[in-house]
Amino acid sequence: MENMGDLIASEVVRKKTALIVGLDPVLENFPSFLLKEKGDSAYPAIEDAIFHFNRIIIDNTADYAVAVKPQLAYYEIYGSYGIRAMEKTVQYAKSKGLIVINDGKRGDIKETSEAYARAFLGYGPMSGDMVTVNPFLGEDGYKPFIDMAKVNHKGLFILLKTSNPSSGEIQNLKLEGGGLVYLKLAQKLAEVTKGTIGRSGYSYIGVVVGATYPEEAKEVRKILPGNWFLVPGFGAQKAKAEDMGVFFDQNGLGALVASSRGIIFAYKNKENWKFIREDEMAESVMAAAVESRNQINAVRLK
Amino acid sequence: MENMGDLIASEVVRKKTALIVGLDPVLENFPSFLLKEKGDSAYPAIEDAIFHFNRIIIDNTADYAVAVKPQLAYYEIYGSYGIRAMEKTVQYAKSKGLIVINDGKRGDIKETSEAYARAFLGYGPMSGDMVTVNPFLGEDGYKPFIDMAKVNHKGLFILLKTSNPSSGEIQNLKLEGGGLVYLKLAQKLAEVTKGTIGRSGYSYIGVVVGATYPEEAKEVRKILPGNWFLVPGFGAQKAKAEDMGVFFDQNGLGALVASSRGIIFAYKNKENWKFIREDEMAESVMAAAVESRNQINAVRLK
Repeated sequence: MENMGDLIASEVVRKKTALIVGLDPVLENFPSFLLKEKGDSAYPAIEDAIFHFNRIIIDNTADYAVAVKPQLAYYEIYGSYGIRAMEKTVQYAKSKGLIVINDGKRGDIKETSEAYARAFLGYGPMSGDMVTVNPFLGEDGYKPFIDMAKVNHKGLFILLKTSNPSSGEIQNLKLEGGGLVYLKLAQKLAEVTKGTIGRSGYSYIGVVVGATYPEEAKEVRKILPGNWFLVPGFGAQKAKAEDMGVFFDQNGLGALVASSRGIIFAYKNKENWKFIREDEMAESVMAAAVESRNQINAVRLK
Repeated sequence: MENMGDLIASEVVRKKTALIVGLDPVLENFPSFLLKEKGDSAYPAIEDAIFHFNRIIIDNTADYAVAVKPQLAYYEIYGSYGIRAMEKTVQYAKSKGLIVINDGKRGDIKETSEAYARAFLGYGPMSGDMVTVNPFLGEDGYKPFIDMAKVNHKGLFILLKTSNPSSGEIQNLKLEGGGLVYLKLAQKLAEVTKGTIGRSGYSYIGVVVGATYPEEAKEVRKILPGNWFLVPGFGAQKAKAEDMGVFFDQNGLGALVASSRGIIFAYKNKENWKFIREDEMAESVMAAAVESRNQINAVRLK
């Protein structure tokens, strides 16, 4: 089996796209055809509605994206029903040839991270191909994910410089003797990455670097030349496509750009969007995915 | 309704204990009576076994603990079936008068943290009374939990200095101009805590400080006099009871001490534990809870 870093590289080349579609279902944004006339507040109906929504998104974006990224929080709102919708979504996305990145930002003490790794990088019902990991507990907390990814030929993205406005509160603290927290973490991850690089030049250990921080991305790239960047914040979080060239290498590889709301809720630009038909929703979503792919390719393949 | 900081204080005084029982079910450690002869690898049977295990733990520790703390990872392994067992556990623990702390260490960008806050501090099927939060994304990431806790009279614990050996990798980095990352975060949380202190002198915003780091706990207490400490690492992680006096104030309040494996798997000290009866398991678990409560009270009420 392939190193996940290599698999991503070959998929980006084959499908000519570096787009990830974020699957963040929010019921308030669903067109009414997804919500049953009766009982739409009942949990089984919500489970059906979320899975139906995600199927439409996957069917209409699979040709333009390398991966989908379900954001766990939006499923956990509905407890076991939401999780079941997510499990079905993971299986459905895999059946369409998409890489599945479970965006849970998990991380804990060793034993607990081992349990999380089993949940997301093992063979349980929620397991996808990759997972996002929070490094605040240090190596004890992220190593179990790396070990499980290695054994099962899966992968992970460790948070390094997140896309949100307050990400600097901890990540950009200045250190004694120079440097910043996120750069120190990058240096540590450079050590951890040794021996994990595949023949594409990329590891199965990736990092999260927000689209909103291109200057930081340049610094991180110098330290981590062989790690895929998962890049959130494109689209709804207002990062500009023209700033994103720095995330890619000279072959247009090295970064996967995630967009959620700008694609999955693209139909909300339409008048009376609440009452659109499924084919109209599908058309909007596909057009937005194509446009995002093209914008990213324009900077990626310049 | 009461401020959660006050509710904890009154429960600690009423029940004469500062113990939290961690509910970290691990099937490999279950006695065989919990596992059905046929189909014990099937997910519905696992769901039943986990809920049965947790009921035994809750029934035999509820008098000696203030709260239970389900660790999400151990439920996520089994996907929606595990989550359903957790939901039933949350409801059952509440019916026994226990405070429920969902230990998920969640944290993300603002919109996603809002979704997590709905899942854990709202009225969804998984919602308990409190949740653990990872602060690596800064205030955007933890503020939504505080806001939801305030509205719904619930609470949270933000990771500050975790109990694991590598917690210093990020948390203890030395900062330019002096200080350490976790102390800087403590100072920030002191600001955030303003206006959230109840009449007990404690806030509904708590912090996680590992039992394994009593020196750090002293420093944190100076900065955060009105925040409950959730203290993991007692028992299996080898923190000593005699080092734990510093976690408590002069009234024996200020800290809740979590123990998981040392209590819930106490029967594993017995010969042939795999084949013990339910009443034997119950007896072991209760004895371990009583002993832990007493050890903690000995330092808490000295």
